[in-house]
Amino acid sequence: MRAAVLVEPGTIAMQERPVPTPQAGDVLVRVASVGVCGSDTHYYRHGRVGSFVVESPLVLGHEASGTIVGVGDGVDPARIGQRVSIEPQRPDPDTVETRSGHYNLCPHMQFYATPPIDGAFCDYVTIGAAFAHAVPDTVSDDAAALCEPLSVGIAAVRKAEVTGGSRVLIAGAGPIGVVISQICSAYGATEIVVSDPDEARRRQVLGFGATAALDPTAGPIGDLGVDAFIDASGAPSAVTAGIRAVRPAGTVVLVGSGAETMELPTQVIQNRELMLTGVFRYANTWPTAIALIESKRVDLDAMVTARFPLERAAEALDADRTPGSVKAVVTVS
Amino acid sequence: MRAAVLVEPGTIAMQERPVPTPQAGDVLVRVASVGVCGSDTHYYRHGRVGSFVVESPLVLGHEASGTIVGVGDGVDPARIGQRVSIEPQRPDPDTVETRSGHYNLCPHMQFYATPPIDGAFCDYVTIGAAFAHAVPDTVSDDAAALCEPLSVGIAAVRKAEVTGGSRVLIAGAGPIGVVISQICSAYGATEIVVSDPDEARRRQVLGFGATAALDPTAGPIGDLGVDAFIDASGAPSAVTAGIRAVRPAGTVVLVGSGAETMELPTQVIQNRELMLTGVFRYANTWPTAIALIESKRVDLDAMVTARFPLERAAEALDADRTPGSVKAVVTVS
Amino acid sequence: MRAAVLVEPGTIAMQERPVPTPQAGDVLVRVASVGVCGSDTHYYRHGRVGSFVVESPLVLGHEASGTIVGVGDGVDPARIGQRVSIEPQRPDPDTVETRSGHYNLCPHMQFYATPPIDGAFCDYVTIGAAFAHAVPDTVSDDAAALCEPLSVGIAAVRKAEVTGGSRVLIAGAGPIGVVISQICSAYGATEIVVSDPDEARRRQVLGFGATAALDPTAGPIGDLGVDAFIDASGAPSAVTAGIRAVRPAGTVVLVGSGAETMELPTQVIQNRELMLTGVFRYANTWPTAIALIESKRVDLDAMVTARFPLERAAEALDADRTPGSVKAVVTVS
Amino acid sequence: MRAAVLVEPGTIAMQERPVPTPQAGDVLVRVASVGVCGSDTHYYRHGRVGSFVVESPLVLGHEASGTIVGVGDGVDPARIGQRVSIEPQRPDPDTVETRSGHYNLCPHMQFYATPPIDGAFCDYVTIGAAFAHAVPDTVSDDAAALCEPLSVGIAAVRKAEVTGGSRVLIAGAGPIGVVISQICSAYGATEIVVSDPDEARRRQVLGFGATAALDPTAGPIGDLGVDAFIDASGAPSAVTAGIRAVRPAGTVVLVGSGAETMELPTQVIQNRELMLTGVFRYANTWPTAIALIESKRVDLDAMVTARFPLERAAEALDADRTPGSVKAVVTVS
Repeated sequence: MRAAVLVEPGTIAMQERPVPTPQAGDVLVRVASVGVCGSDTHYYRHGRVGSFVVESPLVLGHEASGTIVGVGDGVDPARIGQRVSIEPQRPDPDTVETRSGHYNLCPHMQFYATPPIDGAFCDYVTIGAAFAHAVPDTVSDDAAALCEPLSVGIAAVRKAEVTGGSRVLIAGAGPIGVVISQICSAYGATEIVVSDPDEARRRQVLGFGATAALDPTAGPIGDLGVDAFIDASGAPSAVTAGIRAVRPAGTVVLVGSGAETMELPTQVIQNRELMLTGVFRYANTWPTAIALIESKRVDLDAMVTARFPLERAAEALDADRTPGSVKAVVTVS
Repeated sequence: MRAAVLVEPGTIAMQERPVPTPQAGDVLVRVASVGVCGSDTHYYRHGRVGSFVVESPLVLGHEASGTIVGVGDGVDPARIGQRVSIEPQRPDPDTVETRSGHYNLCPHMQFYATPPIDGAFCDYVTIGAAFAHAVPDTVSDDAAALCEPLSVGIAAVRKAEVTGGSRVLIAGAGPIGVVISQICSAYGATEIVVSDPDEARRRQVLGFGATAALDPTAGPIGDLGVDAFIDASGAPSAVTAGIRAVRPAGTVVLVGSGAETMELPTQVIQNRELMLTGVFRYANTWPTAIALIESKRVDLDAMVTARFPLERAAEALDADRTPGSVKAVVTVS
Repeated sequence: MRAAVLVEPGTIAMQERPVPTPQAGDVLVRVASVGVCGSDTHYYRHGRVGSFVVESPLVLGHEASGTIVGVGDGVDPARIGQRVSIEPQRPDPDTVETRSGHYNLCPHMQFYATPPIDGAFCDYVTIGAAFAHAVPDTVSDDAAALCEPLSVGIAAVRKAEVTGGSRVLIAGAGPIGVVISQICSAYGATEIVVSDPDEARRRQVLGFGATAALDPTAGPIGDLGVDAFIDASGAPSAVTAGIRAVRPAGTVVLVGSGAETMELPTQVIQNRELMLTGVFRYANTWPTAIALIESKRVDLDAMVTARFPLERAAEALDADRTPGSVKAVVTVS
Repeated sequence: MRAAVLVEPGTIAMQERPVPTPQAGDVLVRVASVGVCGSDTHYYRHGRVGSFVVESPLVLGHEASGTIVGVGDGVDPARIGQRVSIEPQRPDPDTVETRSGHYNLCPHMQFYATPPIDGAFCDYVTIGAAFAHAVPDTVSDDAAALCEPLSVGIAAVRKAEVTGGSRVLIAGAGPIGVVISQICSAYGATEIVVSDPDEARRRQVLGFGATAALDPTAGPIGDLGVDAFIDASGAPSAVTAGIRAVRPAGTVVLVGSGAETMELPTQVIQNRELMLTGVFRYANTWPTAIALIESKRVDLDAMVTARFPLERAAEALDADRTPGSVKAVVTVS
């Protein structure tokens, strides 16, 4: 099969590799679409993300959909032919974290496109049967692939406790900010303010659920008294401004992976008893993600601004440099 | 001022009464619209609701909107002229329940149209300033009045933990069932099944957010595996069927006031670890209610099927007998 | 190996059986102590518990401790020789319930001594490695076995949200009531009222954390205003009285398995917005259980009122008929 | 009456003042004991705490007990003679924060000994009747006064979600650290590690519930995997080390008021999905506090290391400079 392999920072090589064999409990998936994530691009450009370093050739891509074409022992062969969205993680079922429902925090996690585990920029992948989620025909291949960033957003919105009538501030109108804006709207938030220094992005996000878009460089945001602040920017100044905008007993959720440390306004956190947390991927989000897409409460297809064949994966990885880009997708089959 | 007074079961008399004087901390409100609730009708027909017995003449009506026309000591006179939705309760600020945020459970509560406290079927009422919630001009008088049943629904939906992608079963397609269906939809629920034996009501509720409507008399509902069941019927058979339809670790919320006791399938509650609770009115719901109306996520005006002047309050109290009736409103001014 | 087998209601036969082979991921445990549970006694006497019917010979006993003497593929052989408390369940890691942290609610659960799965009244058993919890030497074999009923109690106390200063009512001073009383005390509850019609049990439970013991037959318990009511009796009258004793916004947890349905005071549940739920076994309780025993915050050894060798398992199953009995243990090795 | 008044930083003057008159809803309390808090000492030495600046003479002291000697309108005169612990806050009942149960976050709060509101270093004070909590005779005047710092600790331990079997790290073995250690023990925590650079304090805290005491200057604390970290030190290095010691999905609570901002390990917070928050005083803690004292689950009397008459309030404010000091108390009557 074909695989687009990161052989060194800045270089993707097309290679022929054997089709993997599904192990017991796994399914074999013919890949359809794969979204490009900021972390893929970061690995491509820098060869590392934080403490994860690419030390041998790596297949990138962890936002993937496809069709089941084979099953391992113990998996119902009737699933062959099923269109699926892939949840790209393999937790160990026997850790404390997994058993308590936080399988995303499992210390033995194997995650697609995270060294040394290969991802989905290739023709076939395997995954645990329970992590290949069936999608109805009304969900496109691209949307099925983008269940992954949608899941990041769902995890954030859940922790932010966004609900009907919530007032939310989101920092960053990139792909994750756009997804979170849509989810907040789907969950009934009635005020969704997005801040981003880029004017095109601000305009764009107003089409994805945001009720207002602010330029954080135009002056201080101030104390908006929002119920929740979700950071999808990773920018320390945005995080500080966002925390100061939250009402007493409100929530702060950090999504954008940024620097190892940040100077935070701890006195505000204490005096307002804010609840600050972060999300690390997601757990138990796929059924929600599929339901939101199928019911047209979120529109992922409208976020796809560029498509590339597998052979042009390198271009897809650089597509964020195109003005107006939201999400690039690699169309594998 | 005019007041429509329940003088004995089945008899409403128009009386002249003095305009009340707002006490310290209160506002005086010129009443605009008042919705008719099932409990008003029950008092009208039977002279009691459960342990609350009408022992002297009582003004009914607790779903009210209006305009502030006077203020008591300590209230900003700038509020005169403000259009408001009335939260018809006066909790004691110093009880354990109130101080812990459950002011609806305050044992010293004074509540409109609950003996011996008069309600709003009259020209003027007083209420604590903080319980007269300003509404924007885009919210009609009727919608402002119906913030009250909307609040009942919000309280129920919060306790049911309905959120994006939730699958919900609602028993009863009367006014409260219709409101809850709308709220569930506003909160992102993607499957909203309503059961009601009345075909007209089933058809109607499909226009208010429900994704399916079932006839419970047509056969057992079965184990739908819904995340939440909300009873707005008060019917023991509906409650039992609803509980059996909930997935493990799901929620059950009883809204419909029914018999003092009910035979419940406790083994199902235990074996599935269901969380069953009830709502008694509401607390801290008005800001959410107004935001949902203003953002057009719920439509209360569409629920009003009949309007009556104050002099015809008795007809309004009987309007539920008209086929196709959802909500009757008394237009006071 | 020896096994005490329920061959028909009322008849336990000693049989020779092959020592089981640990499968991949499992450990083989030489059984030390096995507690007798009310459900074991019920199977012994009636051949069934609710919908679970004994249709072929069954080994009873699911409260077990022992020593690891063998390991299956993928398990660290260094664990051989480790003293362990057995969590007697095998959930399927891939169900929605398990993945969300509620593995006790897994629909594919295999549980010891629940038809057709054999239990621990025998010399050797196997269990998943992660469900064989290491215990320190300061924890006796009996106490290690009784981590199981302790876990039932922990699950109940967690759901009841008992914490420092809580006021709790417990119905039933049998083994589970005694365990729950101890746990409530360990969690900082300052008022622990236990009701039981049996005077000897009432006296006994005062030595296990209870601050008061009531005779429910002496008159109505009334509205105690407790924060939580935990039923460990299964008696409908106790459940009804207990619910009426809870303060507004308090909790009710049903532990005692009783009739399929119960007539409950739903109006009280609604008007006080009580949160009623049940426990079905437990999840993620063993680390807490072991910590509570090791720190001497609960005393399980003091609850053991009779010990029997494996050959006398039938007597152990009838030990609850001895006055003053709390917990019987079968000493296997 | 006598009042010890902070007239300028470093100077306390004894003044004669009129006995205050209890307003409607208030009680008049003859002060018995008043604990000295770090914030009193800070006002005394620096004339300010954060943004609160002493601009006119101020009576310090907000940890107070006494006896009701008069009542305002609407308060039951039968309360005269009652021994009480004073909750030194006057929230506005009509703010969003108060109505939702967070009255400590009320923006209109009037709090003892916080400019310009006088405190309790004097013979008589008034407080809202519901904030004068009756104490039984088994609770000493000193313990009744120290319900206030106990409440700070209860608020922190609640937010940290400490419960039976919890493993907790506490930074700082000053009075608040000692109180929190006792509360954690009362709530069933089985591992309570306290870090403090002072050897005498480390030794001391081992007598107040701590199971281990660490010297943070002796080397890195490392990843202890505790369920909760509570900071009672205000030291940035302690906060950073503490956060790194928490298990995935654990909690972090900041109690010690420190600098306006702190550099925090946000990547750890995100990758472990820690829940970080702070406490600002307390709400709804007094009943718990009194129950914990009365049941002897915490011992506040043992924390009192010095007592001073009102005339020597200045010495009491400097008592923290005495080696081995935990808590100084001013004995007013």
